[in-house]
Amino acid sequence: MPGGLNGVPCLVLGGGGFLGRALIGALQREGAQVRGFGRLSRFEAPETTHPWIHADFADQMAVARAVEGIEIVFHLAAGSTPERSNSAPISDLEASVAGTIRLLELCSAAGVRRIVFASSGGAVYGIPEELPIGETAPTRPISAYGANKVAVENYLFIHNYLYGLEHVILRISNPFGPYQDPLGRQGLIAATLLKLLMGESTDIWGDGSVTRDYVFVDDVANACVKAATYTGKHTIFNIGSGVGMTVDEVIDAAVQAMGVKHPGKIYRPGRKADVPVNILNVRRAHSDLRWSAETHWAEAISRTAAWMEREPTVRALLRRGRNARA
Amino acid sequence: MPGGLNGVPCLVLGGGGFLGRALIGALQREGAQVRGFGRLSRFEAPETTHPWIHADFADQMAVARAVEGIEIVFHLAAGSTPERSNSAPISDLEASVAGTIRLLELCSAAGVRRIVFASSGGAVYGIPEELPIGETAPTRPISAYGANKVAVENYLFIHNYLYGLEHVILRISNPFGPYQDPLGRQGLIAATLLKLLMGESTDIWGDGSVTRDYVFVDDVANACVKAATYTGKHTIFNIGSGVGMTVDEVIDAAVQAMGVKHPGKIYRPGRKADVPVNILNVRRAHSDLRWSAETHWAEAISRTAAWMEREPTVRALLRRGRNARA
Repeated sequence: MPGGLNGVPCLVLGGGGFLGRALIGALQREGAQVRGFGRLSRFEAPETTHPWIHADFADQMAVARAVEGIEIVFHLAAGSTPERSNSAPISDLEASVAGTIRLLELCSAAGVRRIVFASSGGAVYGIPEELPIGETAPTRPISAYGANKVAVENYLFIHNYLYGLEHVILRISNPFGPYQDPLGRQGLIAATLLKLLMGESTDIWGDGSVTRDYVFVDDVANACVKAATYTGKHTIFNIGSGVGMTVDEVIDAAVQAMGVKHPGKIYRPGRKADVPVNILNVRRAHSDLRWSAETHWAEAISRTAAWMEREPTVRALLRRGRNARA
Repeated sequence: MPGGLNGVPCLVLGGGGFLGRALIGALQREGAQVRGFGRLSRFEAPETTHPWIHADFADQMAVARAVEGIEIVFHLAAGSTPERSNSAPISDLEASVAGTIRLLELCSAAGVRRIVFASSGGAVYGIPEELPIGETAPTRPISAYGANKVAVENYLFIHNYLYGLEHVILRISNPFGPYQDPLGRQGLIAATLLKLLMGESTDIWGDGSVTRDYVFVDDVANACVKAATYTGKHTIFNIGSGVGMTVDEVIDAAVQAMGVKHPGKIYRPGRKADVPVNILNVRRAHSDLRWSAETHWAEAISRTAAWMEREPTVRALLRRGRNARA
């Protein structure tokens, strides 16, 4: 489908992450001119129509160059993770909130039309009063990461009010898919799939009842694309599957989807920055953004596992695991 | 009434401002041991039972010394004003949010039991969807000042969730009263009273229809005292009169209360960081905190005007005004 982004100059901040990479692919399929910005992960760099800007979001001069001539900025740069943010809240504040304030000023100066911001549906609401969580629910984050996402949302609103810069905020649940680092601190599904491929027992933080709304990364990328041309009245959308899965269910479903033998589970202490349950109400995205999470769970799992088996750094890891056991 | 604060060591951060000064007086009447902290205004320093700590809130070592041995911290330190915060949002962010994060860490380390935070009922809600505004209304600030107050509120909640530090947030409307600087950028009533005493025309920012909820500073101080010993389930209270007055009404009512001749009005361009209308729903404070704004408008005005006529720096100003006209 040729969208309204054909030929439109777009910038993806945090383009080196797994969501950024999926988004760059989606934007290029729409015919957009895509500039990537950010630290690269240890996987091969994504291909972009513009040269990649390999810089840190804190580098104001680099951000200033990056927004030059851009119409739509996709802001996926994140300072930290919920757990780590509570150990160093001020550096997360500086990286995410102060960094975004500088970005907004640079965008206004450069004539950028719109910012699409990847907020966190898992972190901004905190411990929910009702499920699934709608966009009008109170925001009571329990991590600095979440508080800083709320602050960035407020600054987007202020900048629009004062200077007219458009914004769409996507409160994304728990994304997963190819290029999510299976050795990272976040991403239950990536970590689980790697363990399953290695034939090892899986780690569970908490008692296995922690419930999340998992959404495939290509579906999230599609939501970002739709947000870029959305013209309705809303500025905040929940982006998720609308379905909750416990950690135990995720592991069992992954075992089933991959057709492997069920390994053991190791229960580890829960992390206090993790909310016990998070399931998003995604009706607004469905009715107004004309978006829903379309990829079937089994397909999403098998595409993620297929990437792992293809990815050289993960293959090396799998080989090392097999050799160690041999 | 001897309260639960008799002999309790209390710290008033931002104690040099007009609310801090009123609070110090109220705490001392309750028998609390009061330490004041902050920059002093150009008026005479308030008397405290502990020596005054004359330092900036950004001075982390001074804050660390100040919280030593304290049970209740009243956090009234403000970075900026709504209007100025939008010109320098990052310095307001650093002063208010990063400063408060450091304060919270120091309080936990020092064994402080509770923080009472002066948030802004005028700034956190932004442009209201309904009036009067209740505590559960969405927070959509239109100034960095407001966004940073929301961020501080969220960090108080997080710190309580993670480390057990108690907090009560007072979202205060527009306070006025003795020691509010009549030459400051904030405070319509102080500025108006000075102009009336000088017999000069009053400045109006906007068309005179901007509506605010004005509350007398001694009533706000009383709310802070009650928040210090409150044991109910709520953590956020609106503190205001619950009544809206337009700028025009304030000037007319001040003229009437003081029994002076009505001067002219000069209309100046409105300020975009000012919300058009703000009236707080104060039922929660009434039912749960057992607080309400008790001081009658005419009495509050006459006490404020009486202070101005007594205060040496204001008297000097009045003399200069009279001499210039003579």
